[in-house]
Amino acid sequence: MKIGLVQFNPLVGDIAGNCRKILDFMQRGKAQHLDLMVFPELCLTGYPPEDLLHYPAMYDSVQSALVQIALETDADFAVLVGAPSLNFDAGKPWFNTAWLLAEGQIMGHQHKTLLPTYDVFDEDRHFEPGVERAPLFWKGKALGIAICEDTWNIEPEQPRYHRDVLTEMHAMGMDFIINMTASPYHQGQRKTRMDMARFHALRFQRPFIYVNQVGGHTGLLFDGQSFVMNPRGEIVLQLPFGEEGLWIWDSESSSSPISIQEYNETEALYKTLCMGVSDYFSKNGFKTAVLGLSGGIDSALVACIAADALGPEHVVGVMLPSKYSSDHSIQDSKELAKRLDILLEMLPIADPVNSVEQSLKPHLQNRAADVTEENLQSRMRGLLLMALSNRYGWILLNTTNKSEAAVGYGTLYGDMCGALSILGDLWKTEVYALARWLNREVERIPESILTKAPSAELRPDQKDSDSLPDYALLDAVLQQFVVEGKSPQEIIESGFDATVVERIVLLVNRSEFKRHQMAPVLRVSQRAFGSGRRIPLTFKFPEF
Amino acid sequence: MKIGLVQFNPLVGDIAGNCRKILDFMQRGKAQHLDLMVFPELCLTGYPPEDLLHYPAMYDSVQSALVQIALETDADFAVLVGAPSLNFDAGKPWFNTAWLLAEGQIMGHQHKTLLPTYDVFDEDRHFEPGVERAPLFWKGKALGIAICEDTWNIEPEQPRYHRDVLTEMHAMGMDFIINMTASPYHQGQRKTRMDMARFHALRFQRPFIYVNQVGGHTGLLFDGQSFVMNPRGEIVLQLPFGEEGLWIWDSESSSSPISIQEYNETEALYKTLCMGVSDYFSKNGFKTAVLGLSGGIDSALVACIAADALGPEHVVGVMLPSKYSSDHSIQDSKELAKRLDILLEMLPIADPVNSVEQSLKPHLQNRAADVTEENLQSRMRGLLLMALSNRYGWILLNTTNKSEAAVGYGTLYGDMCGALSILGDLWKTEVYALARWLNREVERIPESILTKAPSAELRPDQKDSDSLPDYALLDAVLQQFVVEGKSPQEIIESGFDATVVERIVLLVNRSEFKRHQMAPVLRVSQRAFGSGRRIPLTFKFPEF
Repeated sequence: MKIGLVQFNPLVGDIAGNCRKILDFMQRGKAQHLDLMVFPELCLTGYPPEDLLHYPAMYDSVQSALVQIALETDADFAVLVGAPSLNFDAGKPWFNTAWLLAEGQIMGHQHKTLLPTYDVFDEDRHFEPGVERAPLFWKGKALGIAICEDTWNIEPEQPRYHRDVLTEMHAMGMDFIINMTASPYHQGQRKTRMDMARFHALRFQRPFIYVNQVGGHTGLLFDGQSFVMNPRGEIVLQLPFGEEGLWIWDSESSSSPISIQEYNETEALYKTLCMGVSDYFSKNGFKTAVLGLSGGIDSALVACIAADALGPEHVVGVMLPSKYSSDHSIQDSKELAKRLDILLEMLPIADPVNSVEQSLKPHLQNRAADVTEENLQSRMRGLLLMALSNRYGWILLNTTNKSEAAVGYGTLYGDMCGALSILGDLWKTEVYALARWLNREVERIPESILTKAPSAELRPDQKDSDSLPDYALLDAVLQQFVVEGKSPQEIIESGFDATVVERIVLLVNRSEFKRHQMAPVLRVSQRAFGSGRRIPLTFKFPEF
Repeated sequence: MKIGLVQFNPLVGDIAGNCRKILDFMQRGKAQHLDLMVFPELCLTGYPPEDLLHYPAMYDSVQSALVQIALETDADFAVLVGAPSLNFDAGKPWFNTAWLLAEGQIMGHQHKTLLPTYDVFDEDRHFEPGVERAPLFWKGKALGIAICEDTWNIEPEQPRYHRDVLTEMHAMGMDFIINMTASPYHQGQRKTRMDMARFHALRFQRPFIYVNQVGGHTGLLFDGQSFVMNPRGEIVLQLPFGEEGLWIWDSESSSSPISIQEYNETEALYKTLCMGVSDYFSKNGFKTAVLGLSGGIDSALVACIAADALGPEHVVGVMLPSKYSSDHSIQDSKELAKRLDILLEMLPIADPVNSVEQSLKPHLQNRAADVTEENLQSRMRGLLLMALSNRYGWILLNTTNKSEAAVGYGTLYGDMCGALSILGDLWKTEVYALARWLNREVERIPESILTKAPSAELRPDQKDSDSLPDYALLDAVLQQFVVEGKSPQEIIESGFDATVVERIVLLVNRSEFKRHQMAPVLRVSQRAFGSGRRIPLTFKFPEF
């Protein structure tokens, strides 16, 4: 059987547009005499449609798109597409369904059974789990259709779900395992997916066809990397990272392992961040990004990513020096802009800050300057950047990293401004590592930016290390507390100083309110701030 | 049986503190010779604990608290408390459990079976549904324990769930229906609850004991209003609105209907908003609120609520007039502050705005002023208010209403600043109605504030009606689109002008990014912005 895998980049909610693209791919598939084309999970609505499913009227559009698609199939040419379907019985209003369309009609369907409701996933919110499970037949072959999570009930110690749908379908006879998925990227996820597929390929001795969504959807980034694995658990077709398109696998002829290009996790991370920026801009109809350049590592890295994602002609860096800004910060920003070939603007904040301090004089005088004056500078920068955004339609990129976001080392409505947080899921130590990798051949980011001590430059001679532990230590504790869900006591027992751990935990818990109003974060880890981590804003962290 | 109903106001996550309060209530219950005390759902952790359940180490604290509580029970005195318990089998890591503690030990438990995962609820994220159902026995009586949603599978047309747990328990013999709940307030919810309870009381001919959490938990507000209903569906005990405490019902003697005080929905709404503010402040250890007073209705109403919630001595109003501010706005703000007896500060923004416009001169000159200049004023106000917040530890209240939030008629990082949105779930027409009600006896809000045409005063002679439809029309369309999930076509068919509907829908869809970074909203409707409505930020609203 000649099977087409479509690594598909939908626009969420754009049923008509996604349908047109599906029909275009189908023309190409027919021209290549494919027997079957496989699209990812919910490709008609894009994944995740979230509360667009709150509008039941959407059902008619979905149905009419399915009919259009079915009409383009024939006796030789079938497609598998994902779309929500209404549940008319008890339970949630929708199913998450795979449709087998062929011979100009609907040949069969399979509802998703295992619905992820954890981390960034909320499928139990809208979908009823499918109960019935049976292979779908096409050209004499039994297709074992799984939708994403359906194949992930593989934790031996404490299974996440009560059913093993592949075993159920295998018992009825299954020639291929087909997983239609929308599996977001995070670092390390590629290997986890391959291990999962190999586990199933080996235990059922069947080929495993994995078709993933691709593209950026605000913070949720889909890397594609679809593949076909043979029954020996070897990759026989590997689709590229982050690229939309059609690839073909012939089950009769291509079952030998191919040599896979070495996978560089850091390169994949960088490409994912670039894809996140470029898809956010293209899908929203935006052209040009603006960001403040402080002379520090975070804004330098964001400028690089933006220049690579959008083209340097669509990136504007703005220096907003204060009386505390060092000469080297200004020089470094100029040098960076020159190397990246991006437009550089200069908006000194001293005068407007002075004017504000004059207005606030009765409130600020006769005391030492403190966080009030520091935040004021940061907020003035936010205000000026947003003025440029309003004036020119430029979109402000946020440059906060995950370590800062975690401990609240940032000013709400100041440096926390921005439409999209580019580095909000990278610890500061990861920011450095990524910048080092970026500079591996050509020094795109001036070396002095990488070597200077991190500073917010909001008071004379300020250093991050005045208020925060060393980033290596900070990030190690944060990783355990925020990502791994370890209790403070467990972290201390793993070998960290109790005072340091307790202080970090306190800082994290105190700054939930800031993260609640933060820009959406490009998600590249297993647990990003945002919908993947939902902590109350009024709470006491339990003692344990 | 003498049963104590504890309308309980926990602090989420504060297991030790909540446990202490539970033990105090138990002392009072024992002194009154109660047979049984009933606490609400998850009273040990507070509801909802959200991703604090991401920390499995919490289990030990919960268990040790349960032991402490059990040790205070005896052969005559039992309690029902709600707490999460670990699931050691397949599925989600926790159960949402009711514990029957008596005779110094654990006598029985019931896991929640029906888990709400819609609107603001995410219980499938953490909890495994309880499978087994049986009454728990105490003093010869069979207690049919339900936890919140367990009694809500009552929609005859399309049931939300597949089980009817009360019928199951009734079949085994059930003397009382006891619902331990954490049911948040919204307008109209009281009647819905009573109707639900009456339905069950009548069909099983059993008393219905309903024990609800009380208090504000950031945006989620619990009104209490617990009650006991007799088998004829009549209220025999009614607990007050918004008040923590212990009330007693004797099943032997008090089964006659009591006369219920007329329930005023508007008064309840106002009290709920006040509770939201006061609990947010007290639970977070905040003292004083600050807000910008524009001379308009929204800030006037927020000032009233804050003064009533915190005491006028803990509210600071700030006038931030610009060159476009009208004299009557300034006069009205002064008059309002005088009537409410709150502190009034004045911070004119003309000079700092001028200074910023000077800095931005190359970008702003040779063109007509537009939204850039307008937003700049709004953001300068935000900056100054946040400076006062930093300087004095005052907490900034946001004054955006739901109509503005819906159509994006507000400036991000400007008038959208604030720690808590007080009116973000009230349409502008509801804001007026509430202000009118507030003025019903004494004119607390100067009448001129209620009668002037709404204006943002960001350019000469600006009126809201320049850019928006009349609020009565706008709100009616928004209610259908945002709250009821009607498609644009359905709204048009219900009798609205197509152009108006399409424009409103476009404005709502274009401003998702603003609401994403908005302060948490006090929820008082069936569908509030925030976690109750999750729309992608990069999307096309489907055509249907």
